[in-house]
Amino acid sequence: MTTIQLYDTTLRDGMQGEGMSLSAAEKLRVAHRLDALGVHMIEAGFPSSNPKELELFDLLSRERFEHALIAAFGMTRRRDARAEDDPALRVLVDSFAPVCTIVGKTWSLHLEKVVKVDRDENLRMIEESIAFLRAEGKRVVYDAEHCFDGWHADRDYALRCLRTAAEAGAETVVMCDTNGAHLPGQIATAVADVVAHLEGTGVQVGIHCHDDAGVGVANSLAAVGAGATHVQGTMNGYGERCGNANLVSIVPNLQLKLGHACISDEQLASLTATSHYLDELLNRTPNADAPYVGKNAFAHKGGMHVAGVMADATTFEHMDPALVGNRRELLISELGGKGTVQARAEEAGITLDDAASRRLIERVKELEHRGYQFEAADGSFELLLRKEAGDYEPLFTLESWRVIVEQRADGKVETEATIKIWVDGERYVRTGEGNGPVHALDNALRAVLSDTHPHLDDTGLVNFKVRILDETKGTEAVTRVLLDASDGQEVWGSIGVSENVIAASWYALVDSLEYAVQDGREEQAAAARAAGAGKSAAP
Amino acid sequence: MTTIQLYDTTLRDGMQGEGMSLSAAEKLRVAHRLDALGVHMIEAGFPSSNPKELELFDLLSRERFEHALIAAFGMTRRRDARAEDDPALRVLVDSFAPVCTIVGKTWSLHLEKVVKVDRDENLRMIEESIAFLRAEGKRVVYDAEHCFDGWHADRDYALRCLRTAAEAGAETVVMCDTNGAHLPGQIATAVADVVAHLEGTGVQVGIHCHDDAGVGVANSLAAVGAGATHVQGTMNGYGERCGNANLVSIVPNLQLKLGHACISDEQLASLTATSHYLDELLNRTPNADAPYVGKNAFAHKGGMHVAGVMADATTFEHMDPALVGNRRELLISELGGKGTVQARAEEAGITLDDAASRRLIERVKELEHRGYQFEAADGSFELLLRKEAGDYEPLFTLESWRVIVEQRADGKVETEATIKIWVDGERYVRTGEGNGPVHALDNALRAVLSDTHPHLDDTGLVNFKVRILDETKGTEAVTRVLLDASDGQEVWGSIGVSENVIAASWYALVDSLEYAVQDGREEQAAAARAAGAGKSAAP
Repeated sequence: MTTIQLYDTTLRDGMQGEGMSLSAAEKLRVAHRLDALGVHMIEAGFPSSNPKELELFDLLSRERFEHALIAAFGMTRRRDARAEDDPALRVLVDSFAPVCTIVGKTWSLHLEKVVKVDRDENLRMIEESIAFLRAEGKRVVYDAEHCFDGWHADRDYALRCLRTAAEAGAETVVMCDTNGAHLPGQIATAVADVVAHLEGTGVQVGIHCHDDAGVGVANSLAAVGAGATHVQGTMNGYGERCGNANLVSIVPNLQLKLGHACISDEQLASLTATSHYLDELLNRTPNADAPYVGKNAFAHKGGMHVAGVMADATTFEHMDPALVGNRRELLISELGGKGTVQARAEEAGITLDDAASRRLIERVKELEHRGYQFEAADGSFELLLRKEAGDYEPLFTLESWRVIVEQRADGKVETEATIKIWVDGERYVRTGEGNGPVHALDNALRAVLSDTHPHLDDTGLVNFKVRILDETKGTEAVTRVLLDASDGQEVWGSIGVSENVIAASWYALVDSLEYAVQDGREEQAAAARAAGAGKSAAP
Repeated sequence: MTTIQLYDTTLRDGMQGEGMSLSAAEKLRVAHRLDALGVHMIEAGFPSSNPKELELFDLLSRERFEHALIAAFGMTRRRDARAEDDPALRVLVDSFAPVCTIVGKTWSLHLEKVVKVDRDENLRMIEESIAFLRAEGKRVVYDAEHCFDGWHADRDYALRCLRTAAEAGAETVVMCDTNGAHLPGQIATAVADVVAHLEGTGVQVGIHCHDDAGVGVANSLAAVGAGATHVQGTMNGYGERCGNANLVSIVPNLQLKLGHACISDEQLASLTATSHYLDELLNRTPNADAPYVGKNAFAHKGGMHVAGVMADATTFEHMDPALVGNRRELLISELGGKGTVQARAEEAGITLDDAASRRLIERVKELEHRGYQFEAADGSFELLLRKEAGDYEPLFTLESWRVIVEQRADGKVETEATIKIWVDGERYVRTGEGNGPVHALDNALRAVLSDTHPHLDDTGLVNFKVRILDETKGTEAVTRVLLDASDGQEVWGSIGVSENVIAASWYALVDSLEYAVQDGREEQAAAARAAGAGKSAAP
């Protein structure tokens, strides 16, 4: 059993995938989920002059992570310049990140044809960049780009590059199969050679694979088999072209099938939820056939298989799905059984007896059947909990709402929403305007509710995602809306499902506002605000 | 270089996947595509009493295949009965199929706990079933279920099962990793042992893998590396749970990376088209990130990568995409330059001079700055191309539109959209209803446009995705809407961005409809439809 260091690059290499886009605040949420999963290092991005990246590193610097170290990504210094004069390396040094990962060249073809850098100068670029970062107190991971192409084309030069990095003080040299060109046998041979060559330098060897040949996971395992102890990859295999090596498959393979130590059993049991959370945040449909975490991964259709599983699960299941937080039956709620539900209730400070837990599970199943999904809608889920626990206060009683959006003849787009609601026996009719239907509905509701719930003035919508679900064959397609709101202290998600996108938005909006004012949250937020205000008033 | 026999089980094991369903006529079309691809054996199904399977075998018996042999699937005889009295084996014998594949047990746990068959009787079941089929003139492939579990649990018994099959006359014994439990190293060890043990019997060893650990492709390659010469799998990895080993990845790996002989170069160049054809027939969205054949498999986005590919393709491409019938995709983004744009114009059959290319790039940059993103909106991008090339015909001139959505006091949600547009100097005012704002606007537009553009009747929206872009903090957040539409032949994406979700949807909708009727597309679609209708009218 070897301890394997997990290095996640979802926030950097993963974002090179088609259509991948996250705000700085969303990336922060991803970092916390990865930390909770037990990932050892999180590559957050280039802390460059890009304002979005600067904002992210600023946000990250103010957070505490339980397990993970944040790594800032950059590259070796420019040719013919001093490392300390390189502005990009200077940004790395100035970043709060304790780990700096820099990428450099290993492959003669690449040096000659693309970057046009002399081989000896390349070695100096590697050496001086790493030495500079080390002198400034950083831990250094060195990513050797095109390492396997380089090793095959000119083994001696590739080894010199890696040894230079090790001797300059990199704690890890990472062999990158940048183009995803290689197969497991080739990976194993090259890694074993490098591990042997670097013996005695104290450096650890890492692996970074892509899935262009459909063997990114197997390549990562082959590298570990040959002596690599640091594995880079992305959640769900996000990344350019066919994606990076998928940590969601690699980790259970390493831990459950090969007996290596990566993360705790509890962390491993959160793998399915973490994988789905990332997909939801990115507005991607989770791959139902994904190994370990897919909805179908432990589903059985063939008659013989179902009979076999009933007689003895090991006959048609390669492992216990609970180990990765997945489950055998398709229609069982994503949230699991009674134990999970009661744990969630406890977190929210709600007492839920056995009967209420069973009712809640039934209710969740029914809602999931209609397209609801609570993994990224913690606010809506807590409201469900409260309803079953008898600890729920509706904000109002609805009579009707109406939204009008028009592009007028002068080209201007106008939106107004009118609501008719009852609060404490009184009827309110209010019209709100907004830059869209949700905003207008939100304004109309707040026009009534802000007086009695001043806390709402500190809350606002921060995200809005819509997807069509055509998974429920035979019936009409439905629209799923996910809203995120925040009071500056906390972010919560809510969900609405309807065949009409505006109606789905309305349901999510009402949940979002109701969550904000439940049970003491207003008082807590006021107290936190007072404390925060004190802090930020200090010089 | 070894010649590898490819055995496709898309029509049998692949159909065990969730939501997989094909008519007998569709299966026949699949068989012909597989034959054209050069697959050596096609497992068509159980020729049982099921009328759909009977119809399929009847259809197949009347067809001529260029390369492929049809295999009928069944299992060893029942216990304590004579093979010639087994009705299921009789059906196999009576089938026209020259190859019969039968599955049998290898694993002691399975024999004891599930099928409750004595070990010696199991050996007789294998021996007598194969001997019976051979005596009736069939070629026999023997699938050893749970072979790797069996080999690990009781190697001697597993080897006896396989040797019995070989000596009874099976031409191939297939080691099945039925549960997908194993990793490449384990597969290689067991296959090498079996190959050595069966040396001299003349039997060939095959491999059948599943993707439960995300290594189905690598396992198949490991088996070939250890001496297997017959590889089973499915197109696009269809199949139960996480799917079967994906032949679409295995074949180019075997042929292009490992130098084995599977199919001709021309056949390999049809791989991408064949893979997409299967997805279309099954009404599944092709996986854009699929190795070798995915739309993104040779896509480049990162600035360094695009520069590298331009300097020398081998620096960031592991092979020439044309070898598998795919092509390089330069993602339209701020990072791409004039070359990308002109290449895209050429594909669309549009001539774009240098000045127009530069204008287009400026326009794309400006739109991207406002939140547009053309990677998944090829339809909108082509319209931009046409606009700059002066080859664009607007569908109408807008005066105004208005959408009303209301939840009435009786709880019912109603949506209506009114448009005021000008076409050929005439003013039209139309109101459409729908189950949501986009649907209602679409209906209103079609009420005017369908008369002059009958092709629109064959097109429809197939997907709708919305997300908020809050990357540009400080200004208002904007909403990005992506629509996919299809005319049954082609799917195209369009995009709209606005702070108002309905306005963004409107822009995307108009692009979607305009794309459908540009430049000969209506005529092409009509011709394709007529050709399709002609074919299906033939007896």
